[in-house]
Amino acid sequence: MDATLVDGVVRAGHQARERFYDSSGYGRPVDDGEIELAPVEAAYLLYRGDLASVDGMGFQSLLGSAVVSEVDFFVYSDLRSRGFYLSPAWPDRVENAAGCDFVVYPRGKGPWDDDVAYRITVVSERETVPAGTLGECALAVVDEESEISYFRTARPDVSGTSQTTVPDTSGELLADRVVCWDPPAALYEQAFYGQPIDEQDPDAVQLSLVEAAYLADTGTLRVEDGADAVTERGRSVEGERFDRRLAVYETLREQGIAPKTGFKFGADFRTYAAIESVENLGHSERLVRVFDAGHAFEARDLALDVRLAHGVRKTMVYAFVGAVADGRDADIDWLVVERLTP
Amino acid sequence: MDATLVDGVVRAGHQARERFYDSSGYGRPVDDGEIELAPVEAAYLLYRGDLASVDGMGFQSLLGSAVVSEVDFFVYSDLRSRGFYLSPAWPDRVENAAGCDFVVYPRGKGPWDDDVAYRITVVSERETVPAGTLGECALAVVDEESEISYFRTARPDVSGTSQTTVPDTSGELLADRVVCWDPPAALYEQAFYGQPIDEQDPDAVQLSLVEAAYLADTGTLRVEDGADAVTERGRSVEGERFDRRLAVYETLREQGIAPKTGFKFGADFRTYAAIESVENLGHSERLVRVFDAGHAFEARDLALDVRLAHGVRKTMVYAFVGAVADGRDADIDWLVVERLTP
Repeated sequence: MDATLVDGVVRAGHQARERFYDSSGYGRPVDDGEIELAPVEAAYLLYRGDLASVDGMGFQSLLGSAVVSEVDFFVYSDLRSRGFYLSPAWPDRVENAAGCDFVVYPRGKGPWDDDVAYRITVVSERETVPAGTLGECALAVVDEESEISYFRTARPDVSGTSQTTVPDTSGELLADRVVCWDPPAALYEQAFYGQPIDEQDPDAVQLSLVEAAYLADTGTLRVEDGADAVTERGRSVEGERFDRRLAVYETLREQGIAPKTGFKFGADFRTYAAIESVENLGHSERLVRVFDAGHAFEARDLALDVRLAHGVRKTMVYAFVGAVADGRDADIDWLVVERLTP
Repeated sequence: MDATLVDGVVRAGHQARERFYDSSGYGRPVDDGEIELAPVEAAYLLYRGDLASVDGMGFQSLLGSAVVSEVDFFVYSDLRSRGFYLSPAWPDRVENAAGCDFVVYPRGKGPWDDDVAYRITVVSERETVPAGTLGECALAVVDEESEISYFRTARPDVSGTSQTTVPDTSGELLADRVVCWDPPAALYEQAFYGQPIDEQDPDAVQLSLVEAAYLADTGTLRVEDGADAVTERGRSVEGERFDRRLAVYETLREQGIAPKTGFKFGADFRTYAAIESVENLGHSERLVRVFDAGHAFEARDLALDVRLAHGVRKTMVYAFVGAVADGRDADIDWLVVERLTP
């Protein structure tokens, strides 16, 4: 069976409609009983041998032409081989086409149904991915050897039941942390602020600068020279990043989530949503990485974070922090990214 | 027992020499039968209650003073609690003191022996670590909550027995890769260049741009417009990074190591040192990340890479590429970084 290419759309006759659209969900029926195929669909049909040619071109010629993006072809082909029907996100093919490349139907469903399994955005590993384009779609990243990694992206719920209030105490600012020499037991043992200097003798508790800045801001911690001295120290050792991290720390604590350092996982924080006491501490559920609003991901960095989080059974969450006034009241957008096996 | 602080060195009497140096490896004996202690040693002895004061200061005052770095104290204390004797890397205390902060003796040995277990460089998580300072030492990174991560650094052997030569073939340059429509079987099946477009039907093999550039440079692959067209395409999609990656790819292949994409691990390459055929492919042994010569690590990125590599049972290797002429004949320094549990 042959087809023709007109203005970037492939056109095939009545027989194609029956064989490709009705029985297998390719293309879009048009008024005269024919179908229109996107070039990527036609390339796949050529590749399978179901179409003989498109304007005289075989698979090799069509893939080598500028009409079909090779990364689109690899993703289309992969999803078809996994048993899905899918449509290119063209306005005349699917609703809400903006912001994605393919709409994938649940297995057993097709373009004649209303259900959607995934809205897929296709990128090459070398492209950067603006964070603002994520949150609704699944990402298909085609690496340089044409292997495909899929990622689910969504907006997480950010709330928990971890305790945040403790009796007042005082601390001493050292170079890179604050030590409370005689803190209330609840500081560490119930609310999981800081770390004992000595696990055997939990009298003295050291706080990270971000913990200390939050506790000083909220009036729980007294430090010589006041809360601003802690924030200033944070900025001097970490720059603007300190304000972004403090804004995220504050929001998490106020939502009942306890953040601790995520350093061992290469993240800003690991978080606990339901701490009652350190004695009965479960595993942290999430890794949080903090970025400026407007951040664009390198696809490789995203793959690294998500793979590591998956390997330690945590969920990777990103926080994008807008303009920050004194580390407080910032607009924060949250994004969760997870491995997806379609 | 009390001690005095003079010019940044703590001095204690005869009794201290016997109790601290002779039996426990603290300090350095000096001519008059007394000992000199580094402030970090004195802080640890104060912390343990073995010293009563240093110039009237207790542990809290000494740690709060500028004389002792808190991150040094945490590392010193951690290694002591693991059963090691160690000395600050002062020229009058140890040989080859340059480039590290502590010299750690094997368990059961001390400063009176010649054996060294680790030469430790201490950094705070917020410091950047110039790659040039690594390779001989172990790194102790103190995170913001004073947890310590240790890393072994060394110069890896870069050689293997993977096959590299295959019969000549030709390929077609697409946007972001090259397709060999009719390659010799050895290309993929023995030498592990490229990937079949279809695993069921391994006729056509796609090559990544870096694979294609290497094969075109070495005369194995003919591409319309020549080898330079492939390299130019690589640069246009990846910038200078392409030349660095090509230089590393070339060196690895010439040393009998087969590199494939490390994208799923967030690295540039994963490598196989002993490929005889793809059918009997083992696991890749290393992840390789490519940087410019002069690179400085964020400690957090190092922690992320090494943790991920460890989780997938691979070794993390870095390649630092000096000035590159056409992706070839570059100076490359290699570094391996692994988790260390002292």
